[in-house]
This record gives sequence, C-alpha cells and structure tokens, in this order.
Amino acid sequence: MSAGPQAPAPAGSGPASSKPLGIVAGGGLLPLSVAAGATAAGRQVVIFGIDGEVDPGYRGFPHHSVRWGEIGRLFDLIRREGVEEIVIAGSVSRPDFSSIRLDFGAIVNLPRILAMMIGGDDTVLQRVVRFFEDRGLRVVGAQDVAPDLVASVGTLGRHAPQRRHDGDIACAFEAVDLLGRLDIGQAAVAVGGRVVGVEGVEGTDMLIARIAELRRIGRLRWKDRDGVLVKAAKVQQDMRVDMPTIGPATVAAAAAAGLAGIAVEAGRVLVLDRRATIAAADETGIYLVGRQRGAAA
Amino acid sequence: MSAGPQAPAPAGSGPASSKPLGIVAGGGLLPLSVAAGATAAGRQVVIFGIDGEVDPGYRGFPHHSVRWGEIGRLFDLIRREGVEEIVIAGSVSRPDFSSIRLDFGAIVNLPRILAMMIGGDDTVLQRVVRFFEDRGLRVVGAQDVAPDLVASVGTLGRHAPQRRHDGDIACAFEAVDLLGRLDIGQAAVAVGGRVVGVEGVEGTDMLIARIAELRRIGRLRWKDRDGVLVKAAKVQQDMRVDMPTIGPATVAAAAAAGLAGIAVEAGRVLVLDRRATIAAADETGIYLVGRQRGAAA
Repeated sequence: MSAGPQAPAPAGSGPASSKPLGIVAGGGLLPLSVAAGATAAGRQVVIFGIDGEVDPGYRGFPHHSVRWGEIGRLFDLIRREGVEEIVIAGSVSRPDFSSIRLDFGAIVNLPRILAMMIGGDDTVLQRVVRFFEDRGLRVVGAQDVAPDLVASVGTLGRHAPQRRHDGDIACAFEAVDLLGRLDIGQAAVAVGGRVVGVEGVEGTDMLIARIAELRRIGRLRWKDRDGVLVKAAKVQQDMRVDMPTIGPATVAAAAAAGLAGIAVEAGRVLVLDRRATIAAADETGIYLVGRQRGAAA
Repeated sequence: MSAGPQAPAPAGSGPASSKPLGIVAGGGLLPLSVAAGATAAGRQVVIFGIDGEVDPGYRGFPHHSVRWGEIGRLFDLIRREGVEEIVIAGSVSRPDFSSIRLDFGAIVNLPRILAMMIGGDDTVLQRVVRFFEDRGLRVVGAQDVAPDLVASVGTLGRHAPQRRHDGDIACAFEAVDLLGRLDIGQAAVAVGGRVVGVEGVEGTDMLIARIAELRRIGRLRWKDRDGVLVKAAKVQQDMRVDMPTIGPATVAAAAAAGLAGIAVEAGRVLVLDRRATIAAADETGIYLVGRQRGAAA
C-alpha cells in the first residue's frame, strides 16, 4: 500500500527536518492542509491514513493506509519511512471495537491502549500523544510544520466586522473562554448582544445548524445578516492535538444560518483551505476576523 | 369570558391575601400548577390566560382570556377582579406583531411597551415585571404562593443517585453555574465524568433531544442508564419570572435519552405536576434529586 515518489530516508541521518514528516491522519481537511503546507515549506511528508476515516485526497501525497488495530504495522511503516516527527490530525469516529482485528503490535501494547481508552484526567488525545512519544517519536502541532494554517490578527477576506458587531464578538468570546476552561467546547454564537448557542460534544457544525433551525422556526429572530460564531482554543489547549479549526464548510453554514461573521482566536485556531474559506466568505458577505485573546472584549 | 364562582372582592379591603391572586398565564403546566397550589393553600385565584398560549386546562379555574395587544382590557379585568398581587407564569412564543390589534390601553402605553421589547441590560421579563409594578400591582413568584412547587433537598421518588453518579452531577452543576452567570442557559448534561451538552436559547427539551440523537448516531456511547441532566437557577435569578422548571415531560425525555437521572438546585427549581413527575421517574427508573448550590460538588 506504500506509494509516493521518495525513497525511505536512512534512519539516524541528519536533522529531523531532512526526514519525512509523518502525518497520522483521521478525517476532514486538516491532514491534507498539513501535508500541503509542509510540502510547500519544502518538507517531505508521508501520510498514514486511518482506513475509513481519512479523506480520499490523501492519495495525492506519499501515503500508507492503516486500519484500526494495526498498531504494530503502523510503527513498522513509520520506522521504514525513517519518520521521527509526526503530526496527529483529523477527526475520528469512535471505532466499532467488535469489528477491530488487533495485530501483534496492538496485542503487545494492549494494556497501554486500554488505559488510553478508559480515561484519566487528561484527554484521550493527550494519551495518544504520549503513546507515540514513548515509542521515540516527536509529536508536533500542525502549526509547527505549516504556520500558514494559523489564523492571524485582523480581517481575512473582503468583509470586516462593523462597530455594532463588537458586542456580540465580545460576549461570545467570553462564553467560549468559560466553555474551554471546563473542557466543554470551542465555539459559541451570539446575536443581538447575547449568547444564544454554546457548543458541547456535538461540535460546531451542529451548533450552527441549531441556530439556523431556531431562526427558521421563529425562536430566534433577526433581519439581514447579524450575530457571530466565535471559535477559540481553551486556555489549557495542547497545541499538538484537537486544535480548533474553521474551513469553507464552516463559512457556508454560518452564512446559511444568517450570521454576519466568524471571529476566531488569532494564533490558536487553524484555517483549513484558506483560499476556499476566504472565497466562501467574500461570496456570501460573511466577515472573518482573527482577534487576540483578551483583546476581543 | 369571565367565569368562576367568586364575586370580585371590593377594592382596598383587607390584606392582599384575602384578595384573589391574579395569574397572567402563558403556555405550559406552570400557570396551572400555580393555580392549583395557591388554591390548595386557601387562596382564590383568577387566571388571565394569553390567547393562543395558555393551556386549555386553565378553564378549570376562574379565568379570563386576553389577546396579545389587549393591555388596556387586561388591566381593566385585573382591577375589576380586585387583584392586587399577580404571578406571571408560563411560556410565550414571540407574537407575530403584524397580526396584533392594539387596544386603547396598549396604544397609550406604546412607548413603554416598545422600550420593553427592544431591550437594555435586563431581560424582557424583568421589564414586564416592572411594567406591572408601575401600575400598582405586586408581582410575586410562583413559589411564594405555591411553596410545594419548589424542589427540596433530597430524593424525589423511588430511585436515588448512586455514588458513581456524583462526578457527573458535580461537573454538570459547575457548567450550569457558569452558563447562568453569563445568562446563557439553565441546564447541562454530563456523562462519564464530562459535560457533553449545554443549553443555550434552544431550551432544555432540545438539549435532551440532542443528547439522545448524539447517542443514536454513536457520537456518544454508553450502556444502560448513565449520565445526568442538571438544572439550576442562575445566581442573579429573579425569583418572580423565568424560574427553571422540570416536569413529567422532562423526565420522559431524559429517560428516552438513556440518562440515569435528573438533579436540580434545591429551593430554586420548580417541579411541575409533582405526582406525575415522580410517577414518570419511578416508572422509567430515573432518579430525581434536589441538591443545594455548592453542596453538589
């Protein structure tokens, strides 16, 4: 299943950046954006795509496909490719454990893997990071290898928030800050000076859809474009996993819900497929703005 | 449209409690629960039911029906009935302003009414309270005239939370506390030690429905009954309007979502139709518990 032009780099030679970057890839655009960004920065990449999760676009890069449970094979592939540094990116649905066939490497690590699934004070993803680190790999964040992914301060695209939007932006940021401290969610929507929707485990897409539905049935009313979606990282965010993201689909959904714009925490939210995201905003009249934590209010 | 056995009490005679209690009634069970509770406590009541909102059950009590816009008529009726003390209770859909015909009393008060709708720092309901108070009426809370409506400390019904439920109860209470401080919502759901859903303007029913849906599609997984719905008043709650409530429908929805129980803030959450609520909990195996603010964690 191996593909891609480059030969595996011999292990132990040169600095990590001369060796291919490994991308352990779940679903969505983020892994592909990381691959494109790192490639543009002159880095070789190899994607290890999780079967059934990864976007088919990963085939455009050097890649392998691995299944849930093929832990031993994944580490063999990583070693063979000479990868010493990895990014873990993309969404995963919770696998159906009954259908997973464990390979030898998974069975050997089973106690550790079970501990990883069952819990503790940190998140599953932080435990996944440690699992890779304990096996000698360096885990870095998407923004470390593709800095252009990160939202900067200021307006993206043609439209800018107006003075009258500042109240909504400020109170939605305040709500997201509290949600983050309790590790509940990364997003909130405010309209007319008050927070009307807050994100739990359902995620940002369902939050926006809910706002659209509440407006459709008349539980929320406003004319023209108004209100804002705010997305921010939690204070204690591990910058290597589970970074908040927005992308073209977020913009399309916000526009469909009648919102005036999207504000994100500058430096700590990733913008996927920036060109398409900005194009979608320009086309629908949505503003996109990055604001620094604390400076928003 | 007047009904009911009692003759209007002559104005200005005796203490307020010898005069009928007025209940300005929107939708749902709360106005009827208030009427039943106050009647049981020996108080005469008159319900002023908002047409198109009030539950048909209000006809079982002395009542009048008023339409949106009949402000003048409402105050005439209140005066004629000798009412000096009112409870404002029940839900209202936002009226379709284009279809409202204003009576003379509404037109006279129009600037005030518009100011009430358009906003400020306090809520519309608090401005409604002041509107009645400025016209010489005393506005009291449901629990002032029907104390049995309020959830007390301890278990209601047959089932009690187990030790393993305490973590969920504590973290959902913490989330609701923050939601309340920002005036966002009154409820949260926690399962497996983390908050998975938080209430915005959509309300508790939609929150529970969302949790049920997330479980159905496999985004949330747990076996048997687990997790909790917590409902609490905000710190700055005006105890006369918009009190958090639970009722038989809340219990049925929580049971359908697979939750183990419901915990409410003792003393500050109303239990509608307590007998039916407890019966629903006993039948479905749901626990219902009242906990004091701060004592929950």
